[in-house]
Amino acid sequence: MAETIANGRADQCANNIDGPTNPMVTPILTDLYQFTMAYAYWKAGKHNERAVFDLYFRRNPFGGEYTIFAGLEECIKFIANFKFTEDEIAFIRSSLPPSCEDGFFEYLRELDCSDIEIYAVTEGSVVFPKVPLMRIEGPIAVVQLLETPFVNLINYASLVTTNAARHRFVAGRSKILLEFGLRRAQGPDGGISASKYCYMGGFDATRRITVFLCFDSNVAAGKLFGIPLRGTHSHAFVSSFLSPDEIIEKSLQHRDGSSVCEDFVSLVQTWLNKLKWSHLLGGIFSETNQSELAAFTSYALAFPGSFLALVDTYDVMRSGIPNFCAVALALNDLGYKSVGIRLDSGDLAYQSCEARKFFRAIEKEFGLPGFGKMNITASNDLNEETLDALNKQGHEVDAFGIGTHLVTCYAQAALGVVFKLVEINNQPRIKLSEDVSKVSIPCKKRCYRLYGKEGYALVDIMTGENEPQPKVGERILCRHPFSESKRAYVVPQHVEELLKCFWPGNSDKTREDLPPLKEIRERCIEQLDKMRPDHMRRLNPTPYKVSVSAKLYDFIHFLWLNEAPVGELQ
Amino acid sequence: MAETIANGRADQCANNIDGPTNPMVTPILTDLYQFTMAYAYWKAGKHNERAVFDLYFRRNPFGGEYTIFAGLEECIKFIANFKFTEDEIAFIRSSLPPSCEDGFFEYLRELDCSDIEIYAVTEGSVVFPKVPLMRIEGPIAVVQLLETPFVNLINYASLVTTNAARHRFVAGRSKILLEFGLRRAQGPDGGISASKYCYMGGFDATRRITVFLCFDSNVAAGKLFGIPLRGTHSHAFVSSFLSPDEIIEKSLQHRDGSSVCEDFVSLVQTWLNKLKWSHLLGGIFSETNQSELAAFTSYALAFPGSFLALVDTYDVMRSGIPNFCAVALALNDLGYKSVGIRLDSGDLAYQSCEARKFFRAIEKEFGLPGFGKMNITASNDLNEETLDALNKQGHEVDAFGIGTHLVTCYAQAALGVVFKLVEINNQPRIKLSEDVSKVSIPCKKRCYRLYGKEGYALVDIMTGENEPQPKVGERILCRHPFSESKRAYVVPQHVEELLKCFWPGNSDKTREDLPPLKEIRERCIEQLDKMRPDHMRRLNPTPYKVSVSAKLYDFIHFLWLNEAPVGELQ
Repeated sequence: MAETIANGRADQCANNIDGPTNPMVTPILTDLYQFTMAYAYWKAGKHNERAVFDLYFRRNPFGGEYTIFAGLEECIKFIANFKFTEDEIAFIRSSLPPSCEDGFFEYLRELDCSDIEIYAVTEGSVVFPKVPLMRIEGPIAVVQLLETPFVNLINYASLVTTNAARHRFVAGRSKILLEFGLRRAQGPDGGISASKYCYMGGFDATRRITVFLCFDSNVAAGKLFGIPLRGTHSHAFVSSFLSPDEIIEKSLQHRDGSSVCEDFVSLVQTWLNKLKWSHLLGGIFSETNQSELAAFTSYALAFPGSFLALVDTYDVMRSGIPNFCAVALALNDLGYKSVGIRLDSGDLAYQSCEARKFFRAIEKEFGLPGFGKMNITASNDLNEETLDALNKQGHEVDAFGIGTHLVTCYAQAALGVVFKLVEINNQPRIKLSEDVSKVSIPCKKRCYRLYGKEGYALVDIMTGENEPQPKVGERILCRHPFSESKRAYVVPQHVEELLKCFWPGNSDKTREDLPPLKEIRERCIEQLDKMRPDHMRRLNPTPYKVSVSAKLYDFIHFLWLNEAPVGELQ
Repeated sequence: MAETIANGRADQCANNIDGPTNPMVTPILTDLYQFTMAYAYWKAGKHNERAVFDLYFRRNPFGGEYTIFAGLEECIKFIANFKFTEDEIAFIRSSLPPSCEDGFFEYLRELDCSDIEIYAVTEGSVVFPKVPLMRIEGPIAVVQLLETPFVNLINYASLVTTNAARHRFVAGRSKILLEFGLRRAQGPDGGISASKYCYMGGFDATRRITVFLCFDSNVAAGKLFGIPLRGTHSHAFVSSFLSPDEIIEKSLQHRDGSSVCEDFVSLVQTWLNKLKWSHLLGGIFSETNQSELAAFTSYALAFPGSFLALVDTYDVMRSGIPNFCAVALALNDLGYKSVGIRLDSGDLAYQSCEARKFFRAIEKEFGLPGFGKMNITASNDLNEETLDALNKQGHEVDAFGIGTHLVTCYAQAALGVVFKLVEINNQPRIKLSEDVSKVSIPCKKRCYRLYGKEGYALVDIMTGENEPQPKVGERILCRHPFSESKRAYVVPQHVEELLKCFWPGNSDKTREDLPPLKEIRERCIEQLDKMRPDHMRRLNPTPYKVSVSAKLYDFIHFLWLNEAPVGELQ
């Protein structure tokens, strides 16, 4: 069914922006109340009133003090192709009371987003609570229809990108980070978009092309976004073999084509015996598991140029590592360099150190430069805490494969993105709440990031639309939006306007291009570098300051008093 | 791009089972290592060896002692349409080393799942750790390609269905439960499948059709699965109005068509004044918020037959409730019954009780039977704990709207579903681990649920494929698979075989039909009723027993000793 919808839509929409990655993202991927409201607006003749909504979140996730904004491209792709099909209109009609008038469905039939304007922070930027990530302007009924899909598309995207960035921060720049999460993701789409956004947040890919790694990566995501893929094998592959006897095709050509080894299986066996009786290594193991040895040998025969083995199916030190080394040494005889091993259980710090010792001993014993630097990848329920613990303990892991905790954002599974009306017909609006953190900041606003002398971002400030822009070198008062006593003067050394026009609608603004994924990723890394380290640290980070201008502060509190009913104590 | 893929596939596959709900679920939604392994199997001439894999999980989620199995239908739809497109084959080729031989891609081109057999527990069943949810048999290279998509499709589906069932358990049978989570879901697909699986796990819909409720439901999910939808309005709708003066079209016809009220706005105002000065209600409020009053009046004019209002935009007791009642009373004058209110912040227990008092006072004061029973829906970050706390405190809520905690499975964002090789070429296989809970149970197995005298399920038992089936009234020894001393004799009063054939492949088995969603939902409710209450309770539930036959026990431990290398202490 989703196919039909997507096709119908493609015929109707002529523009050069593709639809959303997931064809299920259509104008009816929304809450029904958006349609009941649209009907009520239409019925009241109010549907074309010009509204301004802010999309923002209220608290940084994961106990941290920063968030990465992601998902914008999907939102723009969504509105660029926003059009109801006849099927959808029929369904909406059947979901509303029969008394709803035909004219409304005529109205829906003609609807598109040509009259919408979208201003947004650039995707991949570091962002903070309360400051709008997107400002959406347009006829109120249409903007309201965008609420649910936009919030859905931004919420998880920003959350998982932030999660990836946090994992990168703990792991450090020099480690390779691999996203392993497709099978644990919340649905297929969760898996596909996780691959995209983890890459955006600093997970590895092309930059490490020289190291061929066991990236058990999501193939569909690779196809869609051009994210590099790496593959190895699973435990099942290992246990599907019984013994080396079952290997029939045993020959392997030398890498340079100069000769053929007719019995690679025996060559591996010879090396295994050498290892077993070697002075330096002897005694660590006796009999290795034969099913594992057969699996490694077979895998090497299939991929002699990129041999990488999962070594923990039976016993890492007594079977997996010796078996791997025997195969790698046999491959070395034929001119092939092996990639390394993957550890997927047990004490990763200890095992990686022991494996490294073993590799180095072989390098020394057999005079094989580089063997000691064999790549060690670790996986198994890794998260920020375990990475941190591994770092403190000391380890020899070169690459981490992170799955469940990364893609499901296990530590905090949702970001509270909201979409609030801030102005209608040029009248500022406020949403009150007994909980101050839930009061919205009214008015169509401009948002700036002010940078200090050392190049770090100091504070974000929101002003009314027509207030003058903060100027470099000029003192400006930054006020906490809700706390009277919290305020500070700032003399910015650099001022960055945060909201840019990504969808000009009928205005004469220029549309910002949607940058390619790699560029967004680079922006994200750059932006994180510009943050003061105390905002970034894992434990007790300093909150980044978010403020409003003095004028906006006064206006917020005027409007608040105006709208809130006066209580009567009895 | 996904469209093209889906279309290409649809042309190639002729069978009467639709493809997966999400068109992005294709044979390349997988981990690359499934293809590297497939190549290695193919290269070793091993790809057609007959393998048996079990899909199961190791621990119940959410600190509970049960899980609901869901996602089977999507898996069957997936394999029924399993076929690579030329584009996909080209992509796989580009992702593998150039040395991979052409024959392999020829092999992929011809591949389908006609030679696969799938045995599974019926969707919607209560299931337990270690017992296979699915047994997948077939050529090893093909079965391996199913691992990632199957695990992805079962993992979140089972997790969120279980979460829904747990929320239903705490809320009790009499409450209406509404899924509100699309905007917080982990991606669009998370939202769509959450709606399906929450319904399966006992969230409400058609059975409550007599009450028209504010289900801010996911429209796309309603369209796809036929789940009933309900809609109300948001805070933005309320604050988009300034005052009743802006309402232009003020007339409303009496429900029976007998007359027309020319100024509904004034009628509302009259009722508001009556409420204000009424002996019983006076003094609770003075001036209500005019923007809210205008919004409620407008919404009632659009939906006079199903008026429901969100009453917490400004102040529930001093503005929202009186405004709602004034509109509801005016509607009542014209023959329309209103639905009720939604509370979305603050102390839901207190507010619901106060609102109920207010409604009852109106019923009494103005002699309006039924007004006191006005529906009260509550939402705002609800989860199992808050529902439980509300129950303990006492409340007057009729329906709960649950979002974030439900659909993101906030309390535990992933279920550890695994897919393990248990037999190849009739040779049982085991996966060892230093962690006993990670050791797999080898052999192609049969699984039974044994019921006791009181009709409750007592224990699940796994046996070897050729062992005799446990018989009613006959004593059988049930052993813990890994703990020598844990065993018990059971005399079953009823024996249920758990794994049924849902995809017979080339065998002569009959294929079980995929039941409609409603039937699965009923099965789930029924199954939960058959569980002993102590397994179900929230705090310290008793673990349900999962066992193996004596024969299987002995075999597991024989194989274990056989595969594990003997250590040498030095």
